[in-house]
Amino acid sequence: MPGSPDSTAERLVGERRGKLHPAVARTREAVRATLTELPRGTTVLVACSGGTDSLALAAATAFEAPKLGLRAGAVVVDHGLQADSGHVAATAAEQCQTLGLDPVQVREVEVGTEGGPEGAARTARYDALRDAADELAADVVLLAHTRDDQAETVLLGLGRGSGARSLAGMAPAVGLLRRPFLEVPRATTAAACIASGLRPWHDPHNDDPQYTRVRVRHEVLPVLEEALGPGVVEALARTAGLLRADADALDQLAADVAETTLSRAEGQVRSDIGVLEEQPAAIRTRVLRQAALEAGCRATDLTAGHVASVDALVTDWRGQRWIDLPQGIRAIRQGGFIILGQGPGR
Amino acid sequence: MPGSPDSTAERLVGERRGKLHPAVARTREAVRATLTELPRGTTVLVACSGGTDSLALAAATAFEAPKLGLRAGAVVVDHGLQADSGHVAATAAEQCQTLGLDPVQVREVEVGTEGGPEGAARTARYDALRDAADELAADVVLLAHTRDDQAETVLLGLGRGSGARSLAGMAPAVGLLRRPFLEVPRATTAAACIASGLRPWHDPHNDDPQYTRVRVRHEVLPVLEEALGPGVVEALARTAGLLRADADALDQLAADVAETTLSRAEGQVRSDIGVLEEQPAAIRTRVLRQAALEAGCRATDLTAGHVASVDALVTDWRGQRWIDLPQGIRAIRQGGFIILGQGPGR
Repeated sequence: MPGSPDSTAERLVGERRGKLHPAVARTREAVRATLTELPRGTTVLVACSGGTDSLALAAATAFEAPKLGLRAGAVVVDHGLQADSGHVAATAAEQCQTLGLDPVQVREVEVGTEGGPEGAARTARYDALRDAADELAADVVLLAHTRDDQAETVLLGLGRGSGARSLAGMAPAVGLLRRPFLEVPRATTAAACIASGLRPWHDPHNDDPQYTRVRVRHEVLPVLEEALGPGVVEALARTAGLLRADADALDQLAADVAETTLSRAEGQVRSDIGVLEEQPAAIRTRVLRQAALEAGCRATDLTAGHVASVDALVTDWRGQRWIDLPQGIRAIRQGGFIILGQGPGR
Repeated sequence: MPGSPDSTAERLVGERRGKLHPAVARTREAVRATLTELPRGTTVLVACSGGTDSLALAAATAFEAPKLGLRAGAVVVDHGLQADSGHVAATAAEQCQTLGLDPVQVREVEVGTEGGPEGAARTARYDALRDAADELAADVVLLAHTRDDQAETVLLGLGRGSGARSLAGMAPAVGLLRRPFLEVPRATTAAACIASGLRPWHDPHNDDPQYTRVRVRHEVLPVLEEALGPGVVEALARTAGLLRADADALDQLAADVAETTLSRAEGQVRSDIGVLEEQPAAIRTRVLRQAALEAGCRATDLTAGHVASVDALVTDWRGQRWIDLPQGIRAIRQGGFIILGQGPGR
């Protein structure tokens, strides 16, 4: 039957006639580039929801992994947020098995409330993926985020206004997570599913405007593309990669400076003003941010504005008494040092 | 008459009663912060179109400059793009004079076509401002770009996707140009004009959707704010400042590395692979970009994609023959060097 799901034989016939669909080729190429760096015998898990992107990822991984001597399984996270979530998860798991992935595990999670609905679901999902990797002795978990997801993440970061890191999108590789499709358009994964006769599940959450990401996808991106012309998604994804490299370099340089200049004593963190003054603003503010975090400020509460005020103690000293920071931390300038802690100024 | 234009006496009375409008105070404070760094006797020119932002800037400068011992004039550029542009320019010049600015000059310019309508007008305008500064022996020209203009500039840069520099917006200070209002909202300049009884000219181009910036202002920003919540303009402007600092630091670090590693001979630019390999990606790609520019690539034609291909000769060497770059430049890897020029590979 033409277009039937998981018709491996048919797919192979198509390939033998040189008819491999370009979208399928693109997804496999992307997966191969990620897997090729792993030692033979490694177990990789595909995080699969049964949706378009992760089904295309499961298919591409099932095809490529054995050729590289890797064992490829899948983990399906059942968030329990929709009435039929158990059925959806079971269907996705079946599809993964039919594709040849083994082992395939369904994990039910409980989604809390911290960080909003999207944040809480994400936390539960990533915890489940790590647990699955542990249990199944997998070294790598593949996530199906596409170039479009990356562009959306950059736009979501714009609202925070906290610099390069908030615009750097998702990392291609972090811990055991890998994202092979970060440069692959969503249209390609959709075409790959159709070409391979796969029937993806359509997540109704993807159209629910209560989610910020959905509004960015369906409202912001089309208007942005209309105003700036085509290629915006690609430009945003490219921006993420470039800013990630910038942030990595500057964070490392700042860590090196912090290593030499920050000293801790009696709950206070001190930094030598002479050393700070020699640094460009991008590094100086990062060192001061690190000092504030070490002194006890929470990352989520410490804004760029706070750090700029502390920086003014270095670069625009006019006798300010102290700077109040989150968690009751204060910054003062004293005796050639910037001192941060509960004590100073009190 | 209450609310009449340019009623300096009335304004002073209001101030003496402690009734200085907060918007007027904010514009003056911003101008003061910029002017306070200039030596007494310096001449500053306000670039004034007669529109809301630049009229508020003219008023604030006329008030602050004399107190700091500065001479403040204005230059009005008549682009000749609208039928009544001569009348608009004359009115703006009159308003500047009434505010006490002196000298006030109107300069007619011819707008070419290169770089599109907005680009060509900008080029003509900045040339005229520099010429005016020359003629009037001014050391500083003040531009009235607001925080909203900055946010729009960041969004316009998103479409380019060429990294931190394209998202860094407009510089607060570059050459003789200064932008005191870069952190002042457009709503504040409008309120300042109303509070001071100034009657700004409304530029019809500001509503003409043939301009990309107008589409960004009236279509993209409202949708973005709707999706991400309020504070987007502020976040975008803050992003610009942070990314400008990042780009400045990394460009300088890359220039230092380029200084030690790039060598030029026979129209070729060489870079030592050992030195490049030690650098983080953000610096390495900037050095390679500089090498390509020195070899003869035009900045406007050289994309991040080109640079990434050259970078792969360093970090992902698999025997690539050469990389073709704009203007017929080629990059090859040979004898421990990356070599760029017309010659290599031919």
